[in-house]
Amino acid sequence: MATAGADLPRLRELNSLSVVRALRAHPAATVTELSQRTGLSRPAVDVIAQGLVTDGWASILEPGASSVVGRPARRYQFRAGAGHVLGVDVGVHKILALLSDLDGTIVHSVRHSVAADAGATERLAELDEVINACLTEAGKTPADIWGVAIAVTGAVDATGRTSFFTPLPGWKSVDLTAHLGGRFACPILVENDCKLAALAERWKGAAQDANDIVYVLGGMRTGAGLIIDGVLRRGFGGAAGEIGALKPIRWLQAPAHLQNCPGVPSTVGPDDAAAWVFNAARAGDKAARTAVNRYVKDLAVGTAALVLTLDPQVVVYGGGFSRSADLILDPLRREIHRLCLRTPEVRASTLGADAVALGALKLSLNEVDDRLFSAGLSAPVAPRRH
Amino acid sequence: MATAGADLPRLRELNSLSVVRALRAHPAATVTELSQRTGLSRPAVDVIAQGLVTDGWASILEPGASSVVGRPARRYQFRAGAGHVLGVDVGVHKILALLSDLDGTIVHSVRHSVAADAGATERLAELDEVINACLTEAGKTPADIWGVAIAVTGAVDATGRTSFFTPLPGWKSVDLTAHLGGRFACPILVENDCKLAALAERWKGAAQDANDIVYVLGGMRTGAGLIIDGVLRRGFGGAAGEIGALKPIRWLQAPAHLQNCPGVPSTVGPDDAAAWVFNAARAGDKAARTAVNRYVKDLAVGTAALVLTLDPQVVVYGGGFSRSADLILDPLRREIHRLCLRTPEVRASTLGADAVALGALKLSLNEVDDRLFSAGLSAPVAPRRH
Repeated sequence: MATAGADLPRLRELNSLSVVRALRAHPAATVTELSQRTGLSRPAVDVIAQGLVTDGWASILEPGASSVVGRPARRYQFRAGAGHVLGVDVGVHKILALLSDLDGTIVHSVRHSVAADAGATERLAELDEVINACLTEAGKTPADIWGVAIAVTGAVDATGRTSFFTPLPGWKSVDLTAHLGGRFACPILVENDCKLAALAERWKGAAQDANDIVYVLGGMRTGAGLIIDGVLRRGFGGAAGEIGALKPIRWLQAPAHLQNCPGVPSTVGPDDAAAWVFNAARAGDKAARTAVNRYVKDLAVGTAALVLTLDPQVVVYGGGFSRSADLILDPLRREIHRLCLRTPEVRASTLGADAVALGALKLSLNEVDDRLFSAGLSAPVAPRRH
Repeated sequence: MATAGADLPRLRELNSLSVVRALRAHPAATVTELSQRTGLSRPAVDVIAQGLVTDGWASILEPGASSVVGRPARRYQFRAGAGHVLGVDVGVHKILALLSDLDGTIVHSVRHSVAADAGATERLAELDEVINACLTEAGKTPADIWGVAIAVTGAVDATGRTSFFTPLPGWKSVDLTAHLGGRFACPILVENDCKLAALAERWKGAAQDANDIVYVLGGMRTGAGLIIDGVLRRGFGGAAGEIGALKPIRWLQAPAHLQNCPGVPSTVGPDDAAAWVFNAARAGDKAARTAVNRYVKDLAVGTAALVLTLDPQVVVYGGGFSRSADLILDPLRREIHRLCLRTPEVRASTLGADAVALGALKLSLNEVDDRLFSAGLSAPVAPRRH
């Protein structure tokens, strides 16, 4: 009709994008398969696929010797190695960097310990070292990186800072975008650790089948991340999921039951007290069992507040304490069932200590995809920040 | 390209849809204006618009005598009267039905009182009477109705029942879809009153500018409805917003401060006690002022739990008590500011007692639009339920 002529160049680009999408979703495909997946004709796909190889978006898998009948078809695959992204977890006790290709396959990781009381300057220097080590050891330069996402503890405001609150000493005014902006030309994202752990659980963890997820991070601090209708929710000002700040829902006091449990040897430091209590409870220690039960009762109040508010399909319990999910999940389920109108599934995290950094990786990958599929297809180069 | 030919009939339909959309969004438009809005050529719009008139989707506004230069252009407008929808609020004390055209313009309304202790049979009979009166007085038959939405008190489960909990006597097993299905061939929706009031506030009320809204219904019961990213959230099983059921957030006890306020005359019934207390507080009565302050303090705890969880742009306070927003909003703002990390705007409802029925109307209109714009355009007839 009237607009069809004017839209033809755009249509060609859209057809190219649909081939890229079809390539991304599968390991490798022939022209026939791509034609079936996209609804485009075989000759059209043939032209588009060769163009994508020229531009660097796709590579050709030549047929192996295993094919015996007729001329085997060449296969195309998305060149996930065209670019890389960095996901970094800046935690209280550690900094962990993950480097992946555009498919999210991790090609390198570096983890350094950091003192809980390290100031902002010291923590930033350690962050720089971890990133440098990760790039150097993987044979990459900042120009190879298409996106960086950094996870921090505390809600992230509109300026990318944790100005509301953060337990990291001196971190409230740290501007990570500015700090890393000198080295990376690509977009640099900063996001809250609980939110990113939630994203990771849906990507590769315990809630891959769910669109409505309440993630609870259990540790010496208790936090939450929310996925609603498949989308990570930041809230209007970035402070969604911060219900832990409200005294009556008892998350502020919950971990103290473990830390102050009678019987913890004086040789065990405060950071290891909870692990000692979980082990003792597992071994049948009565005081330890009581402490765990009290922890779960308090944990359940805040969790029930989230469940009653959002009515999610799944609650995922992650964080350091989720290593002791065997002691926590059953009583947590019972309490939620007692307190709520409808009881969601309650599952333990399957990602362990890497969840937050994995979520950062996923955030960066999503942002790269948004740019690719909105800006249209040029040859793959590391995009600059706006 | 390859698919363009095969997609042409679909393209024509899509172009028709875009003209219908352009018509719906504005009072009336010339072919030139529609061409500008849709990006389609004038000749194409001309053909499409005449087809829409033939099919009953649009009507022609012939130019009036006010045009003096040249031949004035005829204008097309969406025929909002092609169909009608019903929004009904089945409350504890009243049943209110609103009848509107497809633009949401209300053409008739009927309100009946109902006893708070009326059983399900009595309340259903009253509902039937209200609907009959509304249709008859407006000169409509059930065949003219394209959608019906009923608001009820209590979370609505997947079967359309309030099986989790409802304060309406004997209502838990009521199947409204079955009850009304004999009379109406169109879809019948059932939804929770607080959720629908939230929808109404965004449609025509206090939060038309916001996409992230926490709606709090204040009355002898306190409830919540959530709009996140512009979409009303039901939760996985329909029980989102039911945080009021959690004792520690103090909504269960909040209205009792008003009901049990010292000094309420024995002649004032329990349903009117709150109104008496608000008036007395306004007149300077000390006990009444204390009762209002205690109510707001408790109201604020649950509201803060929602704000800390979702970090909305706006909190709307509605329901019966919002008539006394002059006494409630300022202290509520102070408490939220004290308890939360980031403070949203707090506004009073502007819709009064019609909010819930208006929300039902909007839910039904949204559903009609979904059907229109997904199924494609045939002539406008009342659609049947699936």
